[in-house]
Amino acid sequence: MNIIKKDGSYSVRELKKASIKKLEERNVTVKDIAEIVYLIQKDYQDDLSFEVCEESVDAVLNKREALYAVLTGIELDILAEEDKLTEPLLSILKNDYKLYGVDEVLPFSIVNLYGSIGMSNFGYLDKTKPGVISVLDNSEGVNTFLDDIVAGIAAAAASRIAHRKEDDRNY
Amino acid sequence: MNIIKKDGSYSVRELKKASIKKLEERNVTVKDIAEIVYLIQKDYQDDLSFEVCEESVDAVLNKREALYAVLTGIELDILAEEDKLTEPLLSILKNDYKLYGVDEVLPFSIVNLYGSIGMSNFGYLDKTKPGVISVLDNSEGVNTFLDDIVAGIAAAAASRIAHRKEDDRNY
Amino acid sequence: MNIIKKDGSYSVRELKKASIKKLEERNVTVKDIAEIVYLIQKDYQDDLSFEVCEESVDAVLNKREALYAVLTGIELDILAEEDKLTEPLLSILKNDYKLYGVDEVLPFSIVNLYGSIGMSNFGYLDKTKPGVISVLDNSEGVNTFLDDIVAGIAAAAASRIAHRKEDDRNY
Amino acid sequence: MNIIKKDGSYSVRELKKASIKKLEERNVTVKDIAEIVYLIQKDYQDDLSFEVCEESVDAVLNKREALYAVLTGIELDILAEEDKLTEPLLSILKNDYKLYGVDEVLPFSIVNLYGSIGMSNFGYLDKTKPGVISVLDNSEGVNTFLDDIVAGIAAAAASRIAHRKEDDRNY
Repeated sequence: MNIIKKDGSYSVRELKKASIKKLEERNVTVKDIAEIVYLIQKDYQDDLSFEVCEESVDAVLNKREALYAVLTGIELDILAEEDKLTEPLLSILKNDYKLYGVDEVLPFSIVNLYGSIGMSNFGYLDKTKPGVISVLDNSEGVNTFLDDIVAGIAAAAASRIAHRKEDDRNY
Repeated sequence: MNIIKKDGSYSVRELKKASIKKLEERNVTVKDIAEIVYLIQKDYQDDLSFEVCEESVDAVLNKREALYAVLTGIELDILAEEDKLTEPLLSILKNDYKLYGVDEVLPFSIVNLYGSIGMSNFGYLDKTKPGVISVLDNSEGVNTFLDDIVAGIAAAAASRIAHRKEDDRNY
Repeated sequence: MNIIKKDGSYSVRELKKASIKKLEERNVTVKDIAEIVYLIQKDYQDDLSFEVCEESVDAVLNKREALYAVLTGIELDILAEEDKLTEPLLSILKNDYKLYGVDEVLPFSIVNLYGSIGMSNFGYLDKTKPGVISVLDNSEGVNTFLDDIVAGIAAAAASRIAHRKEDDRNY
Repeated sequence: MNIIKKDGSYSVRELKKASIKKLEERNVTVKDIAEIVYLIQKDYQDDLSFEVCEESVDAVLNKREALYAVLTGIELDILAEEDKLTEPLLSILKNDYKLYGVDEVLPFSIVNLYGSIGMSNFGYLDKTKPGVISVLDNSEGVNTFLDDIVAGIAAAAASRIAHRKEDDRNY
């Protein structure tokens, strides 16, 4: 971000730009997330195109709360990677400790933006870890929050497609 | 509803029409809910008009999941009122038993449609019961679910206004 | 229930007895749910016994809010089955309409009783439908709520086992 | 913490000790939180003692997920205070930006540990900010997460008391 707003009043456009940059620095692209959306949604919709999945991920990234979650989660991952957190939090995050749970709570507001049907997809992705989620999970770096955030964005984007298929244009 | 869709595939327009009718039969209007929105949001926005509050309630009632929650909650209230539920559920609903909790969970997907900032407003309304919420709470009939649903719709509508004030047009 | 408490003040013991009876009338036993717990938890714990899974399901069914969700969900299923709901809700429930979502929200308070790690298991079970969940999903009757409630109880019971394995005796 | 567990496998006892220490360094004691519990619960229970409120806060702090939320939230507050976060997150946290929302999501798993009735209390506390919550909100330092975490612990502790009053000893 070139412009620093000391009162915290960033526009969605600024937050989106910053979030996509951070995601890319952590090796996650909109296309990577769209691939997961395609994977979980294609069984419900024969004529689903990859472009619709990309567009839906983009729409989720127009939501302020989704962007705040992205920025907060990645910040914590990087701070853990650089040993800049204190114990015991540092070791917990570096090991993606199974019972931690905060990483699953953080994307909560993303998952529910298009209704509670997002929760099933989120849980399913968190367990089965397809595509880039698995790459993140197995990488050298700390991605304790990022894998869940990607799952959350993909789950929300899939919910949005499901709603719009029913002619719910206001989703 | 004149048209019965045996496969359950009602459009948002049909669900909205049915929901507003049910709300009105239970003595709740869009204006009543808009008044609560105005009450909780006016301190944050000097130039807030009642029309914006009404429009925001209407926008929440374009969301499919909000409408499903409205229809389900009111149905349970009426069935309890008419003694058409079995025990122990019947007595629990008729008394709006404090620990029941399901009435607070049901509006959950409404509350989070515009982000998690809706949760504070929802809790606040559930405790302080302004306007029509208090009327429902003190009426003769069973409104165990409806008072929470009204609080949920108002909380979501207020969150939507807060987001749109920050130029988040996609909310 | 032989005893009707007109003020709704049923004890947990009474609610549990009523809930297990209703579950069995809908062909779901504690053993059925314990089997799902075993299935999702055995990969994390080599020495997991079926008895521990049964005990954990029983513990979830000592929680008041879990019991309220069981009783409310089954009541709605039965009312739909017997055509005792009004339209449009009746057709929506009879068809377990994909976007309904209220069935996924209702078990929410069960799922989170042992922490947010329950959410992943819940979503996973809702998508993969192992054991009795699949039986319910494919049966003649209406089990729109019950399959999600069973998934919620199993997810919570698995979370509880995961916590207790870490010597968290207060879970 | 004297002992560093590089695999993140801290016991609840260790996490609790670390969390209470961090809370005290941020000027929040168990007594401060118990005062809020007393405030919101005394109207429902004539014979409520302050000791019961203290004991209930202590019980919440035996829950692993509550402790993880405490440690994560305070860490973010301190990092913001010390200018150790990157923009735009830094300015957002330093200003407790109204639409941020992540601070309200983080305590979510605490709030729901004793059922969904905790949500109303949480929202109410977040809006009315009694006792130490107001002190935190008005202090010089950054307490963007901590005020919500204190509200979450108090809300959960109050829910636990409400349940135990009904002879639900397993809460």
